[in-house]
Amino acid sequence: MAANIDDQSPETLGPMIDLLMEKGALDAYFTPIQMKKNRPAIELTVLMAPQDLDRLTALIFKMTTTIGVWFQFLDRFVMARSFRRVMTKYGVIKVKTAKFHGIEKTSPEFEDCLKAARKYQVSLQDVYQAVYQSL
Amino acid sequence: MAANIDDQSPETLGPMIDLLMEKGALDAYFTPIQMKKNRPAIELTVLMAPQDLDRLTALIFKMTTTIGVWFQFLDRFVMARSFRRVMTKYGVIKVKTAKFHGIEKTSPEFEDCLKAARKYQVSLQDVYQAVYQSL
Amino acid sequence: MAANIDDQSPETLGPMIDLLMEKGALDAYFTPIQMKKNRPAIELTVLMAPQDLDRLTALIFKMTTTIGVWFQFLDRFVMARSFRRVMTKYGVIKVKTAKFHGIEKTSPEFEDCLKAARKYQVSLQDVYQAVYQSL
Amino acid sequence: MAANIDDQSPETLGPMIDLLMEKGALDAYFTPIQMKKNRPAIELTVLMAPQDLDRLTALIFKMTTTIGVWFQFLDRFVMARSFRRVMTKYGVIKVKTAKFHGIEKTSPEFEDCLKAARKYQVSLQDVYQAVYQSL
Amino acid sequence: MAANIDDQSPETLGPMIDLLMEKGALDAYFTPIQMKKNRPAIELTVLMAPQDLDRLTALIFKMTTTIGVWFQFLDRFVMARSFRRVMTKYGVIKVKTAKFHGIEKTSPEFEDCLKAARKYQVSLQDVYQAVYQSL
Amino acid sequence: MAANIDDQSPETLGPMIDLLMEKGALDAYFTPIQMKKNRPAIELTVLMAPQDLDRLTALIFKMTTTIGVWFQFLDRFVMARSFRRVMTKYGVIKVKTAKFHGIEKTSPEFEDCLKAARKYQVSLQDVYQAVYQSL
Ligand code: NI
Ligand code: NI
Ligand code: NI
Ligand code: NI
Ligand code: NI
Ligand code: NI
Ligand code: NI
Ligand code: NI
Ligand code: NI
Ligand code: NI
Ligand code: NI
Ligand code: NI
Repeated sequence: MAANIDDQSPETLGPMIDLLMEKGALDAYFTPIQMKKNRPAIELTVLMAPQDLDRLTALIFKMTTTIGVWFQFLDRFVMARSFRRVMTKYGVIKVKTAKFHGIEKTSPEFEDCLKAARKYQVSLQDVYQAVYQSL
Repeated sequence: MAANIDDQSPETLGPMIDLLMEKGALDAYFTPIQMKKNRPAIELTVLMAPQDLDRLTALIFKMTTTIGVWFQFLDRFVMARSFRRVMTKYGVIKVKTAKFHGIEKTSPEFEDCLKAARKYQVSLQDVYQAVYQSL
Repeated sequence: MAANIDDQSPETLGPMIDLLMEKGALDAYFTPIQMKKNRPAIELTVLMAPQDLDRLTALIFKMTTTIGVWFQFLDRFVMARSFRRVMTKYGVIKVKTAKFHGIEKTSPEFEDCLKAARKYQVSLQDVYQAVYQSL
Repeated sequence: MAANIDDQSPETLGPMIDLLMEKGALDAYFTPIQMKKNRPAIELTVLMAPQDLDRLTALIFKMTTTIGVWFQFLDRFVMARSFRRVMTKYGVIKVKTAKFHGIEKTSPEFEDCLKAARKYQVSLQDVYQAVYQSL
Repeated sequence: MAANIDDQSPETLGPMIDLLMEKGALDAYFTPIQMKKNRPAIELTVLMAPQDLDRLTALIFKMTTTIGVWFQFLDRFVMARSFRRVMTKYGVIKVKTAKFHGIEKTSPEFEDCLKAARKYQVSLQDVYQAVYQSL
Repeated sequence: MAANIDDQSPETLGPMIDLLMEKGALDAYFTPIQMKKNRPAIELTVLMAPQDLDRLTALIFKMTTTIGVWFQFLDRFVMARSFRRVMTKYGVIKVKTAKFHGIEKTSPEFEDCLKAARKYQVSLQDVYQAVYQSL
């Protein structure tokens, strides 16, 4: 679902991403666009399950200045995911493995890395490198 | 409907937004994109009623360098709108009320506010604040 | 001079470009930026002669929500310009020649081309091509 | 100060804005740019007091993949600010008044409005409108 | 098909455009977006023939960090194209003519112009102008 | 140095980045901006050594439609760099170590990784992970 917003300030739009994620959106993001009359506007895109369309549309109508939204039904391919934990010099970090048609790839979980980076006062890159060294 | 344009200058693209709105598009806007070979290009998106597809496609083919457009049929939800006029210290301003499933919200009409801001030499924010104080 | 604006809607920001150009700015443009708290904000940049700094700063403070602007003094190189008129199948069009250190280049004037494109119902590209054929 | 970052993921860049603000930056924001080899990169800009240059440069070098930053000294004009509290139907909200050369403008404080919007389950626009009606 | 990528650096994303075009995509481009947690992310969009969906999805899963892609079937209008060669002062350049419903437009082929510009040490604009003068 | 370009197509602008880097620029990149009259334009920024200013300005004037550029002198902090080679399962890869005020960080060289990824038909992420495992 998408809405073009040209009559609301960034300050009041900012909290919408968190709010939509909390209320069950699969993803929500902004794209900078350029509308008529020199307006540097914003497209709000929300990905959601079909059964949430009515509820999240009402939320957007209530919480933003938008008075119209466009939507369509999309398909998607998603890799199968599994999780495990690895021990690193910055503590235990959860790691995600994704598989699809024989392709397999592994990546550290962001929230665990952020906590470790803050605790050990190192950069996120340091934590990611430590995870890769522990795989 | 959307077209990616990488062989036309901004100067010649700029007038397309006004032209498309005059010819009946519901909305028309640019998104900055990055295409192959380091090209900082532009996606032109046009929202329109289905019966205008053929006519507006021909207009885009005639007036831009594009030789292909992509399209799809979208659904939309639109809030019901009604209008009234409020008296402010900057004169009479039209105000729009939008309703949907028990949600109700009110906003000043941009063009009336712009005229008042120019006439009284104040900022648009001053006019919007005056409207909110008069509701 | 530049200001980051995160508390004003695109609708009310849009008219600032024309207003600043009318009031003597050399150039004025928006850049999409991303500020704290997920805000999809806008940087307004204004290029001007040094003697206009105080006057245009006051205009920005009056007409936008910004309460602070940053500025610096830039140098510039500008090509020397001269103008002439060429006869095309879409009428007479002004053409600009720019020179610098032995480099010379020629381009049609946008406003003349736009008028001709509207009068003859052709695209701007058609007019530009006609000008190049008449050089 | 500015750095162009083309070898760090958005996930690891995101926390830098909060971190820089916590450590004393006056402002920090991202601009989407397009670098060589088709890279959709990010410019990180940080505004700071001159005495923080060395300390915040070290923080950026430690916490991002950047190995070079560019800087310059800018001047700025800032409007004088004062604060007061207004009673609204959504509780007491702090309001900022900014003055400069006879220009005066008033705006609600974002954090107070966000708290009220969450408490009363209304949109930020509703709270802002209530503040304007109470001025 | 589209994927939002927030955990891969621009440096490693850049080569995907060329790779996708080599492997048969009709078009591939990046759009800067702003995702949750202050992430300045990238949407990768790929246009392709329906029969390539499975193959190119596997390529994206293998070569990027993405673990999910969204897709839909679009229709398109394409102008009929024909080619010819024109003699210019910078050598022979291929020229494309596109037709649709009585609209006809002509443009030089980029690769030919780039080769001529490099060979004659002139700007691409010089070559384009020479082509228009030879039509 | 920066130039705002609103009268040149992305197709003809794209090759400028490579050209500027070949001719000695330290960095060159595009930023999407929004200029007057609804133009979705491009700012070209070039970082260079002071002694190259005149030469690269002439190159920009010759090769783009721009007739004016703005410039300023910036300072910079750069981390000290050293290189070594590490053996990985995808062959030998050059690795860069950067140091500044006690901060030290290591990253693989992009061009080596790209060659290895192509040779072994794996993703760039796979090569980067292999490098981190070999450190
Ligand atoms: Ni509106
Ligand atoms: Ni319903
Ligand atoms: Ni082309
Ligand atoms: Ni037809
Ligand atoms: Ni604020
Ligand atoms: Ni003053
Ligand atoms: Ni690099
Ligand atoms: Ni993630
Ligand atoms: Ni899109
Ligand atoms: Ni399959
Ligand atoms: Ni011009
Ligand atoms: Ni000189």
